[in-house]
Amino acid sequence: MSEPVTPDPSPSRTIEDETYRAGVIDLLSVIAYGELSGAFATVADAARAPRLDHKLALARMARGDFDHYEQLAGRLRDLGVEPEDSMEPFTAAIDEWHRRTPPADWYEGLMKAYAGAAIATDFYSEIARYVDPETRSLVERAVDSDEQDAFIMSVLSDAIAADPRVGSRLALWGRRLVGEALSQAQRVAATHDGLTALLVDDGSGVGADLAELTRMFERLTSNHTRRMEALGLTA
Amino acid sequence: MSEPVTPDPSPSRTIEDETYRAGVIDLLSVIAYGELSGAFATVADAARAPRLDHKLALARMARGDFDHYEQLAGRLRDLGVEPEDSMEPFTAAIDEWHRRTPPADWYEGLMKAYAGAAIATDFYSEIARYVDPETRSLVERAVDSDEQDAFIMSVLSDAIAADPRVGSRLALWGRRLVGEALSQAQRVAATHDGLTALLVDDGSGVGADLAELTRMFERLTSNHTRRMEALGLTA
Repeated sequence: MSEPVTPDPSPSRTIEDETYRAGVIDLLSVIAYGELSGAFATVADAARAPRLDHKLALARMARGDFDHYEQLAGRLRDLGVEPEDSMEPFTAAIDEWHRRTPPADWYEGLMKAYAGAAIATDFYSEIARYVDPETRSLVERAVDSDEQDAFIMSVLSDAIAADPRVGSRLALWGRRLVGEALSQAQRVAATHDGLTALLVDDGSGVGADLAELTRMFERLTSNHTRRMEALGLTA
Repeated sequence: MSEPVTPDPSPSRTIEDETYRAGVIDLLSVIAYGELSGAFATVADAARAPRLDHKLALARMARGDFDHYEQLAGRLRDLGVEPEDSMEPFTAAIDEWHRRTPPADWYEGLMKAYAGAAIATDFYSEIARYVDPETRSLVERAVDSDEQDAFIMSVLSDAIAADPRVGSRLALWGRRLVGEALSQAQRVAATHDGLTALLVDDGSGVGADLAELTRMFERLTSNHTRRMEALGLTA
């Protein structure tokens, strides 16, 4: 695997720089709204869970997502913006993602939390490679899903082992999720210059060039494939 | 108001006494499941909230309910039971309460959290008068809803002031809630001897006699009336 070296942010990438600051606010805001709406989606999954212990595990996950939201919102307030305002430009794309991917049942809900949300968080982690260490560490904590993934994989693996039809259905659902996620991500990137400016090299030597952007999309796709394969499914 | 004096628990009302211990486990379990299902109901309200700031306020409430659940569950584990098992006898009545009182909209959801849940928590507070100080303080923290009530009253008062039809509808809804709450409470009390034993004097001199039980139901009813009047509504 060709893990890229994380570059040091250039001198212009400090929070005092207006353009950079606007980009960081965009990044934290889109992640904050993603965590918030993810918390709601996870509670909806919990409500569908047939077993009380699964319900509780998901409620704890939702609380974790909400705590991440609160941390990001706190940082946004430190940066002088109201999170409710700064998230506003991103609500339509994220709400639309949830509207277009309604889980038909509890397994599809879990798969969406596992494979769907991960595409978004991988994308934010890619952008976070180019930001200051404080912002990066906040983003990395917010998008960390190891514990959640272990729980979901164990529930889904059991379900797939018990009934192979669940596996074929979830494989199809996974392809639908990746398609919708990429189309919403493109929408977000195309309409929010601040985010794009963080990711793309503007001549300062920090940020990705076209070759690196191509490799980034390859990484997003191969991470998705790896996640599906971990469940014995074809991406 | 004739606020009753809280009696000191009798020597038999210590956690080492098997009958008493079973009663406390019942009490903490029914409250725990109530908080857990209340958290889910509050998130469903949050999802219906038209304003993002209201959504966030409700999500924070739900997190508070869930934290109460976790505290109660922790105490149940200390007492040697698994909360998922000890809550089981109470899930049917509480689930049935939620099935029978589906809010038609966001205001009805708030009213249910404000006036409906309060009847249950008032009832548990009445029982908690007869238990050991540690259990009592845990129950009182779990059922405390002052902050939540202030928020809900402010949203509902605004809505009622803006459109009197909302007020008439919520007054009707409040009567429906109190009827359903009392019928579920009777069901819980009738089928769970442990809880009843905590509340009713078994000859030990601790617990309520028939006259006190009558006064207790008067208090539950007059608290409900007071809550409705605080919104300018007739109970």
